[in-house]
Amino acid sequence: MIAAPKRTRKGGGRRMRAAREAGPSRSAVPNPVYARMVNPYPPIEQFSADRIDAIHETSMAMLEEIGIRVLSNEARAFYRDAGAIVDEDTHQVRLGRDIITDAISSAPAKVMLHSHNAHRDVTVGGNQIAVATVGGPPNISDMDGGRRPGTLQDFHNLMRLAQSFDVIHILGPAVEPLDVAPQMRHLEYAHAMATLSDRIPFVYSRGHEAVADALEVARIARGVTPEQFSKEPSCYTVVNANSPLQLDVPMSRGVIDFARAGQLMILTPFTLAGAMAPVTVAGAVAQQNAEALAGITLAQLVRPGAPVAYGGFTSNVDMKSGAPAFGTPEYVKAAFASGQLARRYGLPWRSSNVNASNAPDVQSAYESQMALWGAMMGGANIIMHGAGWLEGGLTASYEKFIIDVEMLQGFAQVFQPEPCDADALGLSAVREVGSGGHYFGAAHTLERYETAFYEPLLSDWRNFENWSEDGAVDATTRANRIYKEKLAAFEPPPMDPAIREEIDAFVARRKAEGGANLEN
Amino acid sequence: MIAAPKRTRKGGGRRMRAAREAGPSRSAVPNPVYARMVNPYPPIEQFSADRIDAIHETSMAMLEEIGIRVLSNEARAFYRDAGAIVDEDTHQVRLGRDIITDAISSAPAKVMLHSHNAHRDVTVGGNQIAVATVGGPPNISDMDGGRRPGTLQDFHNLMRLAQSFDVIHILGPAVEPLDVAPQMRHLEYAHAMATLSDRIPFVYSRGHEAVADALEVARIARGVTPEQFSKEPSCYTVVNANSPLQLDVPMSRGVIDFARAGQLMILTPFTLAGAMAPVTVAGAVAQQNAEALAGITLAQLVRPGAPVAYGGFTSNVDMKSGAPAFGTPEYVKAAFASGQLARRYGLPWRSSNVNASNAPDVQSAYESQMALWGAMMGGANIIMHGAGWLEGGLTASYEKFIIDVEMLQGFAQVFQPEPCDADALGLSAVREVGSGGHYFGAAHTLERYETAFYEPLLSDWRNFENWSEDGAVDATTRANRIYKEKLAAFEPPPMDPAIREEIDAFVARRKAEGGANLEN
Repeated sequence: MIAAPKRTRKGGGRRMRAAREAGPSRSAVPNPVYARMVNPYPPIEQFSADRIDAIHETSMAMLEEIGIRVLSNEARAFYRDAGAIVDEDTHQVRLGRDIITDAISSAPAKVMLHSHNAHRDVTVGGNQIAVATVGGPPNISDMDGGRRPGTLQDFHNLMRLAQSFDVIHILGPAVEPLDVAPQMRHLEYAHAMATLSDRIPFVYSRGHEAVADALEVARIARGVTPEQFSKEPSCYTVVNANSPLQLDVPMSRGVIDFARAGQLMILTPFTLAGAMAPVTVAGAVAQQNAEALAGITLAQLVRPGAPVAYGGFTSNVDMKSGAPAFGTPEYVKAAFASGQLARRYGLPWRSSNVNASNAPDVQSAYESQMALWGAMMGGANIIMHGAGWLEGGLTASYEKFIIDVEMLQGFAQVFQPEPCDADALGLSAVREVGSGGHYFGAAHTLERYETAFYEPLLSDWRNFENWSEDGAVDATTRANRIYKEKLAAFEPPPMDPAIREEIDAFVARRKAEGGANLEN
Repeated sequence: MIAAPKRTRKGGGRRMRAAREAGPSRSAVPNPVYARMVNPYPPIEQFSADRIDAIHETSMAMLEEIGIRVLSNEARAFYRDAGAIVDEDTHQVRLGRDIITDAISSAPAKVMLHSHNAHRDVTVGGNQIAVATVGGPPNISDMDGGRRPGTLQDFHNLMRLAQSFDVIHILGPAVEPLDVAPQMRHLEYAHAMATLSDRIPFVYSRGHEAVADALEVARIARGVTPEQFSKEPSCYTVVNANSPLQLDVPMSRGVIDFARAGQLMILTPFTLAGAMAPVTVAGAVAQQNAEALAGITLAQLVRPGAPVAYGGFTSNVDMKSGAPAFGTPEYVKAAFASGQLARRYGLPWRSSNVNASNAPDVQSAYESQMALWGAMMGGANIIMHGAGWLEGGLTASYEKFIIDVEMLQGFAQVFQPEPCDADALGLSAVREVGSGGHYFGAAHTLERYETAFYEPLLSDWRNFENWSEDGAVDATTRANRIYKEKLAAFEPPPMDPAIREEIDAFVARRKAEGGANLEN
């Protein structure tokens, strides 16, 4: 539409280049529009300040009167030493608000996560947003093969996709590689995350040995001493409370291991209103708050100043079937409230991009968008399951990964400052074009057209006739094509060969030793 | 999942009943959750107050220095009489800011639109949101018949669907019935809107005669005198400026006709950044603002106090092809800014639910959600094309209508006040369940489970196995089934037989007279 002679279809322009380079990141230097998401809007608040106080008071009453059942002897000892009332028969730990308040006050409000590529360091907290891939489903799906058990190959592919988009900042545990023996999986995770990506790795809290192995790989990848590693968070875990009001042995170990190691621990209660929490949004959020604060308190008792984040995952169930639902109106309100609570305590807030659809269809898109807006406009700092989550977390979807990246890139562009100076206001252009003309050839347009607008990854804006002639391919099918193109074009990020060799050797040795004792 | 003996799958509960009754509305009394949408959140602001001032100043400079080309002699006379500098050769009208400020100050901040069913009266302004159906596409589509020219039957069907959902408050012109002669269409529109629905009707500004006919049908439907009708807005039109900076004869006539009749006129410039407006968001919004204020000024010059609304439709084009794009990051920012400007002038703000997808696929869903959040969180008062818009407005889609209703109902539920008193906080329930239990049988749950959560229209939350056994039907296909069920269950709203007879007779007579002279 523009006759400017120097224009080429593939021509320059910062933001159009940006969109293309959201593809395989051959350069170690990411596009700042996507690599550093900063939310410019004040967060939306669900409840008035006095209602947030009431939620806080209710959480305190839960912890003081009812307490939380802690199955780990070691964890109970930490609570007891801090002055909690511990019943060693029932394992119930009753926590006074003074213990919680003291402990929370030592938690940092912001955490810098260090990558082995310094361009991929991520700040968690403030107005910044870090997005993670999907994590945890036992199944993988795409349009070609349908839904099937996850494999190591799928895990690798999802790491490659994560590396292909700058809007993915941290790695989730993608999909469970069911073809790998459980005692070996942590080694495959750690190896793949360190070598196929330069994003912040995730570590499962599945016992001391497995955690120690994964931390060692993350340390080697960074090329730092154990001392430096313990001062510079370089990986993270998520610990789920066993809602309601319970912390089991592996989860307690995770809190303790990560606090001792100085690595980020996100405490996320799994408070589904009506199932594992009260049926009301306010009640479910109050219980979430009690559980999150109890776990974060444990981390601070183990090591004051340990990097932590406040996880909110409150949603509701379908009361007809008990099935979990996500991206619901209740989910959005709980997200807004969770952000308010995390900010009340000066903690980074983790939310999620979730949906309950069984297919990468319109339901998956509108439920995800509801969840994403709840997270983004609520002021989230970490968005777990940012790309690829389907079916309430039971399936990782290749197509959904691409659909989510498109939505995430859209948010990153919305968050970009919008110029509104005299140049941008463009009165000169209006003078040039006048009444009834068009702006395609205006100087103001020609100076800016290549960089003016977001160029989508997935949306197809061609007219119906061109789109039809080209096969009338719907967006999910286009996402299928895009994920394969990205995998075909993948190149691993650069890594010092000596470091790569050390990682390979460590992982090979630990495999030869039989992997980790998961009971430990 | 709940053992309560009195529970039945179809059992009571206000909100679950609400979701079902979002179906065919046999009762004249709508569900207040959907029928009266009130946004509880402060609007998101794109620009600081001084930048909004700068946009205002730029708009004033456009109107004072460049002016707007007004092709109607009658409209130019109004502007001239108010003191504008009018060039009768070029038809350029230069408007001083004093004229605009004076005129705008007489425009009402809120407009009550009156239905022939008082339960369907709609307030436009403040924190209230009125949602309209799709309006204007020449094509209709569904999965069965694909994309094809719109017919009167399709127009009727879309009116029936509008009537089936309480979250639709006003009628858009749905789809163009290309099987009806142009001079007869306004009669078919008016007749169908008055008899198949009790929502606020839309009237096209297609000449004095056609407008007069449609207003007469709306008046008869309400059963009021011409005097009362002119004091009680009971229908509305949309006037698009011919951007940039031009108002043609039919559009000028629409402004004048509706101001004289005391009916609502929404002035919506069609400012696509890079095509009909500057390539920057700030510049396009400044031009939108100039055009909207010029048209609203005309309405106030014709009749001070005439009901008007400020329309914002700024989006961007694909700079590769010139194709319009919707639901883009730029669209969202322009929406937030438009809301700020409308509030600055004390005018109700109209936004839209738009997308550029060629199919009711995930692109249509995530682009629509972006547009809807921009509108809702930006503080919109009217959302045009709320249900059924596809393909940048070239097609009305039956499936998209249902998908949109699901998203709209979600917003209505998010907007519902969330209780956070002691009962809602549910400490008693947490005491009852304790650590490690579940809430399905708790008294707190049993008292609330039927009404606790939004029950979706379209989302399927069954597990993968049940969903697969039932045919693995995706959401768009489910939408296809739902729209047919709603049409099959449709019953027209009650109407006084004498009024119905009068409408039928008027329309029959005007048809016999040959319809309207559209050149008039």
